[in-house]
Amino acid sequence: MNPITMQLVADKYIRLALEEDISSEDVSTNAVTPKYQKGEVQLICKEDGILAGLPVFARVFALLDGDTQVEAYAEDGDAVQAGQLLAKITGDVRVLLFGERTALNYLQRMSGIATYTHTVAKMLEGTKIRLLDTRKTTPCMRVFEKYAVRVGGGENHRYNLSDGVLLKDNHIGAAGGVKEAVQAARAYAPFVRKIEVETEDLQMVKEAVEAGADIIMLDNMTAEEMAEAIRFIDGRAQTECSGNITMENIQKLASLGVDFVSSGALTHSAPILDISLKHLRTLS
Amino acid sequence: MNPITMQLVADKYIRLALEEDISSEDVSTNAVTPKYQKGEVQLICKEDGILAGLPVFARVFALLDGDTQVEAYAEDGDAVQAGQLLAKITGDVRVLLFGERTALNYLQRMSGIATYTHTVAKMLEGTKIRLLDTRKTTPCMRVFEKYAVRVGGGENHRYNLSDGVLLKDNHIGAAGGVKEAVQAARAYAPFVRKIEVETEDLQMVKEAVEAGADIIMLDNMTAEEMAEAIRFIDGRAQTECSGNITMENIQKLASLGVDFVSSGALTHSAPILDISLKHLRTLS
Amino acid sequence: MNPITMQLVADKYIRLALEEDISSEDVSTNAVTPKYQKGEVQLICKEDGILAGLPVFARVFALLDGDTQVEAYAEDGDAVQAGQLLAKITGDVRVLLFGERTALNYLQRMSGIATYTHTVAKMLEGTKIRLLDTRKTTPCMRVFEKYAVRVGGGENHRYNLSDGVLLKDNHIGAAGGVKEAVQAARAYAPFVRKIEVETEDLQMVKEAVEAGADIIMLDNMTAEEMAEAIRFIDGRAQTECSGNITMENIQKLASLGVDFVSSGALTHSAPILDISLKHLRTLS
Amino acid sequence: MNPITMQLVADKYIRLALEEDISSEDVSTNAVTPKYQKGEVQLICKEDGILAGLPVFARVFALLDGDTQVEAYAEDGDAVQAGQLLAKITGDVRVLLFGERTALNYLQRMSGIATYTHTVAKMLEGTKIRLLDTRKTTPCMRVFEKYAVRVGGGENHRYNLSDGVLLKDNHIGAAGGVKEAVQAARAYAPFVRKIEVETEDLQMVKEAVEAGADIIMLDNMTAEEMAEAIRFIDGRAQTECSGNITMENIQKLASLGVDFVSSGALTHSAPILDISLKHLRTLS
Amino acid sequence: MNPITMQLVADKYIRLALEEDISSEDVSTNAVTPKYQKGEVQLICKEDGILAGLPVFARVFALLDGDTQVEAYAEDGDAVQAGQLLAKITGDVRVLLFGERTALNYLQRMSGIATYTHTVAKMLEGTKIRLLDTRKTTPCMRVFEKYAVRVGGGENHRYNLSDGVLLKDNHIGAAGGVKEAVQAARAYAPFVRKIEVETEDLQMVKEAVEAGADIIMLDNMTAEEMAEAIRFIDGRAQTECSGNITMENIQKLASLGVDFVSSGALTHSAPILDISLKHLRTLS
Amino acid sequence: MNPITMQLVADKYIRLALEEDISSEDVSTNAVTPKYQKGEVQLICKEDGILAGLPVFARVFALLDGDTQVEAYAEDGDAVQAGQLLAKITGDVRVLLFGERTALNYLQRMSGIATYTHTVAKMLEGTKIRLLDTRKTTPCMRVFEKYAVRVGGGENHRYNLSDGVLLKDNHIGAAGGVKEAVQAARAYAPFVRKIEVETEDLQMVKEAVEAGADIIMLDNMTAEEMAEAIRFIDGRAQTECSGNITMENIQKLASLGVDFVSSGALTHSAPILDISLKHLRTLS
Repeated sequence: MNPITMQLVADKYIRLALEEDISSEDVSTNAVTPKYQKGEVQLICKEDGILAGLPVFARVFALLDGDTQVEAYAEDGDAVQAGQLLAKITGDVRVLLFGERTALNYLQRMSGIATYTHTVAKMLEGTKIRLLDTRKTTPCMRVFEKYAVRVGGGENHRYNLSDGVLLKDNHIGAAGGVKEAVQAARAYAPFVRKIEVETEDLQMVKEAVEAGADIIMLDNMTAEEMAEAIRFIDGRAQTECSGNITMENIQKLASLGVDFVSSGALTHSAPILDISLKHLRTLS
Repeated sequence: MNPITMQLVADKYIRLALEEDISSEDVSTNAVTPKYQKGEVQLICKEDGILAGLPVFARVFALLDGDTQVEAYAEDGDAVQAGQLLAKITGDVRVLLFGERTALNYLQRMSGIATYTHTVAKMLEGTKIRLLDTRKTTPCMRVFEKYAVRVGGGENHRYNLSDGVLLKDNHIGAAGGVKEAVQAARAYAPFVRKIEVETEDLQMVKEAVEAGADIIMLDNMTAEEMAEAIRFIDGRAQTECSGNITMENIQKLASLGVDFVSSGALTHSAPILDISLKHLRTLS
Repeated sequence: MNPITMQLVADKYIRLALEEDISSEDVSTNAVTPKYQKGEVQLICKEDGILAGLPVFARVFALLDGDTQVEAYAEDGDAVQAGQLLAKITGDVRVLLFGERTALNYLQRMSGIATYTHTVAKMLEGTKIRLLDTRKTTPCMRVFEKYAVRVGGGENHRYNLSDGVLLKDNHIGAAGGVKEAVQAARAYAPFVRKIEVETEDLQMVKEAVEAGADIIMLDNMTAEEMAEAIRFIDGRAQTECSGNITMENIQKLASLGVDFVSSGALTHSAPILDISLKHLRTLS
Repeated sequence: MNPITMQLVADKYIRLALEEDISSEDVSTNAVTPKYQKGEVQLICKEDGILAGLPVFARVFALLDGDTQVEAYAEDGDAVQAGQLLAKITGDVRVLLFGERTALNYLQRMSGIATYTHTVAKMLEGTKIRLLDTRKTTPCMRVFEKYAVRVGGGENHRYNLSDGVLLKDNHIGAAGGVKEAVQAARAYAPFVRKIEVETEDLQMVKEAVEAGADIIMLDNMTAEEMAEAIRFIDGRAQTECSGNITMENIQKLASLGVDFVSSGALTHSAPILDISLKHLRTLS
Repeated sequence: MNPITMQLVADKYIRLALEEDISSEDVSTNAVTPKYQKGEVQLICKEDGILAGLPVFARVFALLDGDTQVEAYAEDGDAVQAGQLLAKITGDVRVLLFGERTALNYLQRMSGIATYTHTVAKMLEGTKIRLLDTRKTTPCMRVFEKYAVRVGGGENHRYNLSDGVLLKDNHIGAAGGVKEAVQAARAYAPFVRKIEVETEDLQMVKEAVEAGADIIMLDNMTAEEMAEAIRFIDGRAQTECSGNITMENIQKLASLGVDFVSSGALTHSAPILDISLKHLRTLS
Repeated sequence: MNPITMQLVADKYIRLALEEDISSEDVSTNAVTPKYQKGEVQLICKEDGILAGLPVFARVFALLDGDTQVEAYAEDGDAVQAGQLLAKITGDVRVLLFGERTALNYLQRMSGIATYTHTVAKMLEGTKIRLLDTRKTTPCMRVFEKYAVRVGGGENHRYNLSDGVLLKDNHIGAAGGVKEAVQAARAYAPFVRKIEVETEDLQMVKEAVEAGADIIMLDNMTAEEMAEAIRFIDGRAQTECSGNITMENIQKLASLGVDFVSSGALTHSAPILDISLKHLRTLS
C-alpha cells in the first residue's frame, strides 16, 4: 500500500484501532518508563507464510511518533520463514510498547490472508482461471484485506456497493426480470461500470447475455449446467463462479473454461500468520 | 450487547463499516428500486454453531433506517443449526439490500468466535480453569469480538492498555527487575487496578509473589516448572497461562491447578459461522 | 436522492454546512424567539427552471429538528416557474430561521445545475449522443452536484478516482505508452472497471483500440481527426469527447457518431436558480 | 489565507474533499506508478482573471504529502493572463496526480469568484460605496469563498448566524415590531455585535433609527424611497442595499449616498476561472 | 439553551464527555442489570444557588436513550434551595446509571457559574454597570459556561476570536500604534464587528477615540486615570474595565460611569453547586 | 503527560478547544499581522502554586504550527512563585496570539488543580492515608485534570466507568443485595478489575467483606461507625472514605486507619492559578 493511499484512506482506521487499545494511557508502560528512552525491537516471523502489511505495521508507529524508524529486511509479497528477522524498529521505547499489539494485529491478519490466498492461487496455476475476493471482509478492514489478497496473488472484485454493479436475485426480482434489471442498471449506473448478473440456471444466463451483461456469475450450478452456460455465452461476457476451491473442483472448473472464481474464505476465514516483536533493548 | 453500550461505543465502528461499503451509493439497488418498497427477508443459519451479534446485526439496519424491524427467533448464546430461521427483517427493500453485507459480516464473524470459544470452553468443563481472551483482536473489532467471547462461554482479560496492568519482560527490563516494575506500577497505576506480571522462570515467580503481584502469568514453562511455580505461589496470587489448548494439555493444566488459561486464537483465528439472508420478498 | 443514501453519504456534509453557518448560535433568532413557536413558511420559485434538491432541502431542517414537516407541491425534475409555490415547511419558527440559508444554498445550487444541464441536454435531443458530467465539481458538493446532473437529464461519468479508470497523458507517459498503460490498468484494477484512455491523435487511438480500451476519449481533435478516429474504432470501444457544447458543434458531433460528450461546465459554472423562503407566519 | 487559519479552519474541508475524490485509492495512478517517482508539473492559467486560492491549492498537495513543493510565480490578488505560468509543483508523481483535480477545483472556483468580484468592484470605483458579500455561499465553501471575495476587492458581511445580528422581516414579526426586535437583540446579543435591521419602507426605517440600529438595510425600495430613507437616517446608522449591480444602478446608488451594497451573485453565480496542470515530467 | 442550538452546537461536546466516561462499557451497571428495567431517580439540590444547565443535563440522558423522560420542577435561572426536588428522571435503569456522572458534571458546574455570577450581578444592582464574562472559560465548555453566565444575570462579551475585535497591546505594537491598529481592523474585519481597543493610559485612550474605536477597555488604571479617561471619551465609545469585583470597588466604578465590567473569575474560578441524583427505584 | 499519550488521547480535545476559540479566523490578529513575523513572548507566573500542564500548553502552539519553540524554565510539579519566568515561546507572532488564550486556559486550570491538590496532600503528610480524586471532573477535561491531580501529589481513582467496578447503593439494589452484586460483578467484569463496594452501615460492610470485595468505601458514617467497620474489615479489604478534608477530620481519619480518602473538590472546585503571557516582542 503506497504512503499516499495509506495516509488518505487507511489512517482513520489505524487511529481508531490505536484509540481502541489506549483509551486513556498505557498504564504499564507509563509506570515503568516515565522518560524518553531510545530502544530497538526486532520483528520476527514465527511461521512460514507470505508477508503482507509491513507498511501498515510501520504506519502504526509513525502515527504515534514520527521519529520511529522501521528498517525492513523483507517486503510485502515475500515468502518468509519461521525464525526470520523481518525488521528492526527503533525509537522511543514507550512508542514501541504502545504500538506493539495494534501493529501486530494488522500485520498478522494481513499476512494470514496473503498466505492463505497464495495457497489457493497456487492451486490455480497452470489454468487460465483468475482468483477473486469478495465483499465478505471484516468490518473496517476492507482496505487492508483487499490489499492483502492482491499481495497473496489474488485479484480484487469490486471494492464496495458504490463502484460495481452486481445484480443478484433480489435485484432481478425487484426489477421484474433479468432484462429489466440490466436495462435499469445500464440507464442508471455511470457508464464506466461493467454490469454483472448473478444467474442460477441456463434461462437466466440466456437473458443475461441478451441483455448485454458484461459479466455473468454462475451460481449454484452443476458442472454440466456450467458447461452449457459457458458454451452458450461463448465469450460474449466474462464468467465467474464462486464457492469452495479444492484441487478436485479446480480441475473441473479449468476444463469448463470459467474466467474467474471468487472466494469469501480468503478474507473471512484465513487464520493469522504468527509474527512477533522480540528482544527489545535500550540504546544509549 | 445492550443498546446503550452499543449506541455509545459500537455505533461509530458500525457507521464506518457502512461507509466503507457505500462510499457514494448502492448503485445496483438504486438502479432497480427507485422508490420505497416494503419487503421482508429471512436470516437463515447455514452451519451449526453459537449465535452471537444479533443486536449488532439489527443495529446496522437501524442506523440506515429507524423503521426497519427485526423479529428474532433466536438470541445470542443459542446453539443454532444449519437451516434454522434466525430472524425476519422487515423494512424498505433498499435498506435490506444496502445493509445486508455489513450486517452479515458482523454476525458471521461474531458467531464464528462464539462458536470456537464454545468448543474450547467445553474442553475445560469439569476443571476449575477459566478461559480468557487476549488483546489479539482484529483492529476496530475489539468491542464486538470480546463480547462474542463472553457469549461463547469465555471471559475477558483486560480490555486494553488503559484498564489493566500487565508487566511483560520489556517492562521488567525497563524497570530494572520484577520488584522494581511492580513497585512502579503500584505507585503509578490507579489503585483499582490489579497488577499482573509475566514470568518465565521460578526466580521471576518468586520475585513477583514477594513484590505483591495480584496475578502471575506463567509463560513458556514446562509442566514441571508450572507445577513448582503454582506450589510456590500457593494462592498468594492468581495464575494464568497461555498457549494452545488441546484435550491433552488441558488435563495437565487442570491437574496443576492453574486458574486461567488465555488464548489469542479465540479472536484471531476463528473461522466465520455461515449465515445468510434469503428469500427477500416484497410486501404490499 | 433516496433517504438511505442521503443519511449515509450526504448527512455529514449537510451537518458541516450547518455548523459553518452556526458556530455558536443564531443570535438574531434566539434573541427574538426565546421559546418554541410553531410556524409555517413557503418555498417559492423566483425563476423558471428545473427543480433539484428538494429532499436535501428538507433534510437540512430534519437534521435540526425531526419534527419539521415539509409538504411538497413539486418534485425533483419538475420544470418549475417563477412564482410557483414549491412547498410549505411547518415547525418550530426557530428551526425555519436557523435552517433557511443552508437549505436554500443547497437547493438553489442544485436546481441551477439541473436547469443548466437540462438546457444542454435539450440541444442533444434527436441525436444519439449522451451527456456526461466530470469530476470538476465544487469540493464537498460532488454527491449533490452529480445527482443534480442526473435530475437535469445528464448522466454521470465516474464518481471519483477510486471507481473508474481514466488513463490520461500523464499516466500514459508514466507507463511508457498506451499499450503499457492499459496493460498495467488491466492487471491492477478490479476487473469490474472499464478502462478509458484519453487520446490526442490517431496513433494513440489505434494503440488504445489494440490494447483493448473499453472507452476512448478523443481530446482536442479536429472534426476530421475525430471522424477518422471513430471510423477506425468502428464500435470496438465507446467514444467520448469533451468541450464546449453549442448548437453548431452538436450537429458536427452527431454526424460523427460520437457516443458521449462530457462537460465540466455543468457543475463548475452553472448559475444558481433563484428560490426563496417567504411569508413566514406563526401558527397557534 | 494564512497557514494557521488554513490548518485550523480549512483543513477539515480540504480533507473531506480529498476523501470525496479518493474513497479507496486512485486506481489509474496506482496501476501505472507502483513506486515513488519524483516529478514536476506546471500550473498554467488559461483565461485572464484574478488569482485566488493558491495557498489552498498548495495545501491540498501538502496534506497528501508534506514533501511536495510549490514554487509560485504569482500570488493571490494578481491579475493573471491566459498562458501565464503560475507555479511549478514538484514531488511524488502520484501525489501530483492524486491531488490535481481537488486542488484545481478549489483554485478555479476561488479565482472565479475573485475575478467576478473584481469586475463588480471596478464599477464602484470612484464612488464611496463599498461592496459586500452575503451568506449565499456554496455549502462547505464559505471560508474559501469569503476569502476570495476579499482577494477580489470586496468586503465581507457577517461570517455566519453566530457572529452578526441581522433582523429580517421574520424576526421583526416574531418580536412584534422593529423597536421590540432591536431591544430584544440589544438585550440578548453580545454587546460587541452591531445590530442591523432590514427595512422595507420609510416607517420601518424611522423605527429602526429610533431603536438605535447600527446598520439599516434598505430592501426592495425605489430610488425615491431610498433617497428619503437616507436623508432621514442622516448618518445615524450605516446603510446597505442589496441586489443586482449594473453600471446604471450604481450611478443612482452613488448619488443617493448609500454606504454598502451587497451581492449574493459574487459567491453563488460566478463562473470558474480556467486554470490547469500541464506538462508533467519525471525528474531523476 | 434551546434544543436546536444544543443539538447543533453542544451535542458534540456532550457525546465526547460520555465517551470519556465510558470507553468500552459501564462494567458495574452491566454486571448487575443485564436486562431492561424501568426506573426513576430524583434530582435533588444540596446547596442554595441558581440552577443552570437542566436542558444539558436532560440531553445527556436523551443522547443515551431517546426514551428517557425528565420531568422538571424547576428551570434554569431559578433560585433553588438545599433539599429541593428539581426533577424526576424516568427510563431504563441502565441509562440512569450510565449518564448520572456526566449529566451532573455539567449541571453542577453550570449552576456553580450561574450562582457565582448572580452574586456578583447582585452587587452591581442599582448601578448602570453591566457585568461581562471573558474568554477565560474551561476548554470545550465555552458554550455551556457562557450560557450559564447569562442565566446568572451576566452578559456575554465576544464568543471567540472570530466574532469580535479586541486590539490588545500586542496587536497595537504589531500595527505600529493605536491609530494604525484600528485602521487595519476597520479595513480587514467584517463591518458588522465593533472594534474594541485595550488602553493603558490616557494617551492611548485619546488615540483610540480619535481612531473611532467603538469600545475602549481601561486596563490597569487608577481610579483617577479612569475618571479622566471617561471624561475624555464622553460617550464617544463604550467603556469597559476588568478585574476583581468587590463591594468597595463597585462603588468607585459606579461613580466613575464605566459602562461594563468584565470578570474572568465568573467562569474560571466558580466552585460547583452541589446537586445529586438520589432515590433510584425500579418501576414495574 | 508524555508526548505519545498526549498525541493519542489529548489532541482531539485540544483541537476542539482551538476550534471553539477560532471558528473562522482570529480577526484582530489577521488584521494587524498580515504576514509572517517572528516573535517571542514570556510565560510568567502571577501567583504562588504548583505548575501543571506545561506540555499541554506547548502542545496547543505545536498544533497550530509545528515550528513554535517553547523553552521551559520550570517543569510540571515545581512550586512556582508570583513573578517567576516559566518559559519563553518563540514563533510566528500570529501563532502566539491565536493560541494564547486556549493554552492559558489549560495551564491555569491544571495548575489550579495541582496547587489545590498539593495543599490537601500536605495535610495528609505523616499519615498513611492516600489522597484520591473522583470522576467529578469537568466534561472533556478528565485526562488533563486527573494528570494534574497526580502532579499535585494525589492519586487517581478509576479513570471511568469502563476501567473500574464500584458498586453503589443503586447497583446493590438492582442486584438484590451486597453479596449478589459482588457475585454479579465477579462473574461479569474482567478478572483484572478490583471490585469496590460502597457501604452505608456495618451490616453492609460485613456483607461486602464476606462477598470478597477488594475495596470497601465507607460512606456517610460517623467516626465511631467507621472505626468499627475498619476493625471488622481487619485488612481483608482496602478502605476508602470520601468527603471534606480539613485538618480536624484528617486527624480522626488517620487514627482510624482508613487507607484512602477521595475528594471531588480537587477537580470540581479548585480555583485557577493565575499565569499569563507577557512582553511579546518581534524578532528579526
